[in-house]
Amino acid sequence: MPVSIDDVWSAHKKIAPFIHQTPVLVSQQLDDIAGCWLFFKCENLQKAGAFKSRGVVNAVLSLSRENAKNGVATHSSGNHGAALARAAQLRGINAYIVIPSNTKHVKRAAILAYGASVIECEPTLAARERMLEKIVVETGARFVRPYDDDHVIAGQGTAAVELLTQVNELDSLLVPVGEGGLLAGSAIVASPKIKVYAAEPEIVDDAHRSFTTGELVTSHTPETVCDGLQTSVGIRNFSIMRDLVTDALLVSEQEIIDAMHRLWARLKQVVNPSSAVILAAVIRNQKVFAGQKAGLILTGGNVDPNDLPFTSEKNLT
Amino acid sequence: MPVSIDDVWSAHKKIAPFIHQTPVLVSQQLDDIAGCWLFFKCENLQKAGAFKSRGVVNAVLSLSRENAKNGVATHSSGNHGAALARAAQLRGINAYIVIPSNTKHVKRAAILAYGASVIECEPTLAARERMLEKIVVETGARFVRPYDDDHVIAGQGTAAVELLTQVNELDSLLVPVGEGGLLAGSAIVASPKIKVYAAEPEIVDDAHRSFTTGELVTSHTPETVCDGLQTSVGIRNFSIMRDLVTDALLVSEQEIIDAMHRLWARLKQVVNPSSAVILAAVIRNQKVFAGQKAGLILTGGNVDPNDLPFTSEKNLT
Repeated sequence: MPVSIDDVWSAHKKIAPFIHQTPVLVSQQLDDIAGCWLFFKCENLQKAGAFKSRGVVNAVLSLSRENAKNGVATHSSGNHGAALARAAQLRGINAYIVIPSNTKHVKRAAILAYGASVIECEPTLAARERMLEKIVVETGARFVRPYDDDHVIAGQGTAAVELLTQVNELDSLLVPVGEGGLLAGSAIVASPKIKVYAAEPEIVDDAHRSFTTGELVTSHTPETVCDGLQTSVGIRNFSIMRDLVTDALLVSEQEIIDAMHRLWARLKQVVNPSSAVILAAVIRNQKVFAGQKAGLILTGGNVDPNDLPFTSEKNLT
Repeated sequence: MPVSIDDVWSAHKKIAPFIHQTPVLVSQQLDDIAGCWLFFKCENLQKAGAFKSRGVVNAVLSLSRENAKNGVATHSSGNHGAALARAAQLRGINAYIVIPSNTKHVKRAAILAYGASVIECEPTLAARERMLEKIVVETGARFVRPYDDDHVIAGQGTAAVELLTQVNELDSLLVPVGEGGLLAGSAIVASPKIKVYAAEPEIVDDAHRSFTTGELVTSHTPETVCDGLQTSVGIRNFSIMRDLVTDALLVSEQEIIDAMHRLWARLKQVVNPSSAVILAAVIRNQKVFAGQKAGLILTGGNVDPNDLPFTSEKNLT
């Protein structure tokens, strides 16, 4: 195992002063719908609005002085970029964030607000990687990956560490799987005492197929409403997933949207669609979770209030 | 004083098993904007979505067996009706909720979900009161007021009791004022050690005028975006307010909408406009609160996601 539970606890100690210990929320009405006891770990209320602050803060604080001195860099249009900008500001070093030219104003503003340098490029993965390489060569900044990095995995696992101190005797833990860093970190902490389940959209089923076949398959499916889960599982993350995760569950786009709506209406949390995947998975698989105490990590809350995928007057229980 | 701090502590002990101890959230970015330290008590995450659950649960649990046996009744189009329905369900008695015929589907559904009988009437205050009287006569149910009731005031004060155990050494406490029950209960708990401020919309300035002149004036102004603050301060509540509150602050409709947007964007909490009034008041009165630790009670989160008064792309700090 490239990352141990001790690594996660070290990360927990290191990053605790710089992140929120996020609250755990419950809802009787959602429990009734799901037929089990649900404990929502609200990483949507994390610094910079997503769990990614955890891994990135751990990665930046773990850099040697020599490696940190020229700053850090990455390419990102979303939470990773903002989280890295914030982590660099905490350490007092430069951050260079490459963003696609079609990045929304609010996301760009969030990165700039943390004092980072923003560099625009064409909105393709190739252009992003080329531009990042150029920046790294020119500035000597250190590339901080959003995932598939041991310090990042250990940092993401700290959400589960907190949850396990906040709620006793969970039976299961559900985590959305995109690149798999949060899933890997959570599984290291919770497994085998607590069964860990991944969940993802049916139309981006690479984690499910990889898990089922034992061979890592990749996919990139921009059609899902879950913009955080379009990507494939990383190599390190997959090896941890294969060893420690109980199952990888699939849900439809409509189930995700309904779950997001329920989280708004019942839990009063506006989460991104990626977070809603795990509630959708519990509701779809009622027999699996019946009567259990299930932890669910809500991964992020950076959504546009005027671009929600549901309407309010839908007659939803 | 009709309600003492001991009454509030008794209510706290009585209702604690039946309500959420709501979390306190903070945001560095909002602190920077406001120039002070803000601690948000999230009653938007309370049972039934608003602080009103506190007072109503205390009122219903405080009824004698004789007075409770025929159930409880009220007229309400909103949070009070849902909270009373839930409190009656907890005690195993009937609830009769008179609602105006133009009540939105989601609010009606919330009341019905708690097992209450819903009775429709014409959407005027006179029709609501007439219908309620008829129901009370026919069923023998006990009318539970939404405010200006000692048990309700004591129950609302429990939010401040929790906040003071969650955050040490607050300098000030801000509370929206509509009917004034939450304000009165909070002031009983916090004053005089902590300065208590009321806040309301400029266009419904009855609390401000009453406080300034020392004479209770009434107004009903449906034009404000704050549907929870259209009403006037109750008589009991005003007498407590006059004795214990430091000042009554006013804010404009646009300031309220901007504050609601900031609470979404920075704190990730979708609150009703009434809750946003207090953040608007802190931002408008920076000199008053500079460098202080200020508690703010977010009163409710029952808003329609498709009917928000702000747009997302507005360039707001």
